[in-house]
Amino acid sequence: MKKKANYDIAVVGATGAVGRTILSILAEREFPVGRLVPLASSRSAGTSVEFNGQKITVRELKEDSFEGLDIALFSAGGSVSRQFAPIAAQAGCVVIDNSSAFRMEKDIPLVVPEINPHAIGDDPGIIANPNCSTIQMVMVLKPIHDRYRIKRVVVSTYQSVSGTGQKAIEELKEQSRQVLQDQPVVREVYPHQIAFNCLPHIDMFLDSGYTQEEMKMVNETRKILEDQSIQISPTTVRVPVVYAHSEAVNVETEQVIDLQDLRRILSEAPGVRVVDAPEKTEYPLAVDAAGRDEVMVGRIRSDLDNPRAVNLWIVADNLRKGAALNAIQIAEFLIRR
Amino acid sequence: MKKKANYDIAVVGATGAVGRTILSILAEREFPVGRLVPLASSRSAGTSVEFNGQKITVRELKEDSFEGLDIALFSAGGSVSRQFAPIAAQAGCVVIDNSSAFRMEKDIPLVVPEINPHAIGDDPGIIANPNCSTIQMVMVLKPIHDRYRIKRVVVSTYQSVSGTGQKAIEELKEQSRQVLQDQPVVREVYPHQIAFNCLPHIDMFLDSGYTQEEMKMVNETRKILEDQSIQISPTTVRVPVVYAHSEAVNVETEQVIDLQDLRRILSEAPGVRVVDAPEKTEYPLAVDAAGRDEVMVGRIRSDLDNPRAVNLWIVADNLRKGAALNAIQIAEFLIRR
Repeated sequence: MKKKANYDIAVVGATGAVGRTILSILAEREFPVGRLVPLASSRSAGTSVEFNGQKITVRELKEDSFEGLDIALFSAGGSVSRQFAPIAAQAGCVVIDNSSAFRMEKDIPLVVPEINPHAIGDDPGIIANPNCSTIQMVMVLKPIHDRYRIKRVVVSTYQSVSGTGQKAIEELKEQSRQVLQDQPVVREVYPHQIAFNCLPHIDMFLDSGYTQEEMKMVNETRKILEDQSIQISPTTVRVPVVYAHSEAVNVETEQVIDLQDLRRILSEAPGVRVVDAPEKTEYPLAVDAAGRDEVMVGRIRSDLDNPRAVNLWIVADNLRKGAALNAIQIAEFLIRR
Repeated sequence: MKKKANYDIAVVGATGAVGRTILSILAEREFPVGRLVPLASSRSAGTSVEFNGQKITVRELKEDSFEGLDIALFSAGGSVSRQFAPIAAQAGCVVIDNSSAFRMEKDIPLVVPEINPHAIGDDPGIIANPNCSTIQMVMVLKPIHDRYRIKRVVVSTYQSVSGTGQKAIEELKEQSRQVLQDQPVVREVYPHQIAFNCLPHIDMFLDSGYTQEEMKMVNETRKILEDQSIQISPTTVRVPVVYAHSEAVNVETEQVIDLQDLRRILSEAPGVRVVDAPEKTEYPLAVDAAGRDEVMVGRIRSDLDNPRAVNLWIVADNLRKGAALNAIQIAEFLIRR
């Protein structure tokens, strides 16, 4: 990417949960933004979003929206990305796409900047941002894999509703009120009540009985860690939490794991914070992770029977490191290199 | 137990969440109750509980509370059981104890009636009721173990606050209101906010980094299935759900698992109901399991890499099959045999 003092940036899906977070993180990290162009569907066009204390009018996403811009951050779902990301790239933008549309395409890099920035070629058109539940897991798996060689992972997720979007946040809150007031529960976003309930169902079901979300964790992890031999057995579950995903992860390795060494390499891993003092009731919590950049890991303990396995509890803000922050870190890498 | 037309029964901890459920299940199943004696601490003595539409005054638990009674159902915590269960047994009661006090004692049977009623000797003094998260898991593991021989289980739980008791139910509701109204969250029962959060912490932490709850799942499962070789790697998590626990379970077996056969043996297992039609968005849910007797299992699918492993999602009402119902089923077994 050509060095410039400032970069003109489109944010596609600017009114959504991830889009809003992108705007606030761009400001907070003082990303050198020249022109900021918030884009959305015709439905949201004309409304305004806040950026750096200023109100900016949202424009309708169109084929000519990207002329003259440098970077396009997409976060408006797979079909919007499939239609408009190639157009933006054609117009000369580097596209950083938060949807699943291009993640598994062979020639599209799937990037977590702390792990595999080398996957980005000299002249990238589209760069894919991984799935939220994958990002926080690989942030912790990467140093373990480098040191002990991961063979197999069994992961169960506890995913917040903000991963679904703004309407899901409202649905959880509204349904919670309805339950507390003994009123009938109204469902719109999720097929079942999410308030005071757990849904073992995120994204579409496949014939195998796994969901798309579960397969994202499998396929994206292998692509990011550049190792197709890692076995991953996932169960992804939506829980009545607003922000931040939690994950219970059992990791089996080739080498025997020394817990003290493991704690050290995790505490030295960029972007990872070890929160693990159970005697002081300190462990990663969704409510603590919300609004923070780091991936938190705790409940670090050896498997009870297998010296080549450990259990971990990994928590991160799905809108930040799981989406907006990771995308902006990719952009930072591009303008820095 | 001597055959009688009716049995005089003490319910210790009658005002608690499990105690109340015991009273309602005794009535609902038309257990042949003669005298019903609700017992509690001096704090609750004098209040009343409902049984079969009648109000019965709660009495203070004392050393002479059990004279002349046939069965004592204990559900008032470990220290109460340790002190009073031997006294009740001495007075001639069969004690069915829902606390963890005696579960791992060599001479005390730990019983799930569908699985190991044979563990109850001819003249039982104290019979232990297993932990809620263990009961629902072994109900599903037992038929799998009989058929395919289980080697290893990785389990992550999603446990409701009713497992902690009545005060925890109120805390979750009150904190949920506080969050929805942007008020400060008041913590009393749990060390951290439980509303809209997940706590990877149930019961006390041990030096190993595991919690007591996690070790209950390990040790009780082995005792009930009468197989010390089964490896279990647990993570137990409290979630903001009122009733019913959910569990994501990965099961590795000696034999290759045929999914169709697995579904059949699970659907034939007593007390187990297969709820597994993801194409119709049907899978076990806490809100559906609440108030029901069966253990529901769904999301039944082969491990992606290991033909000798499956993933399952197991949900049951922790106050019913996880506690009160199981205890009453034990009593039913005693009076029937």
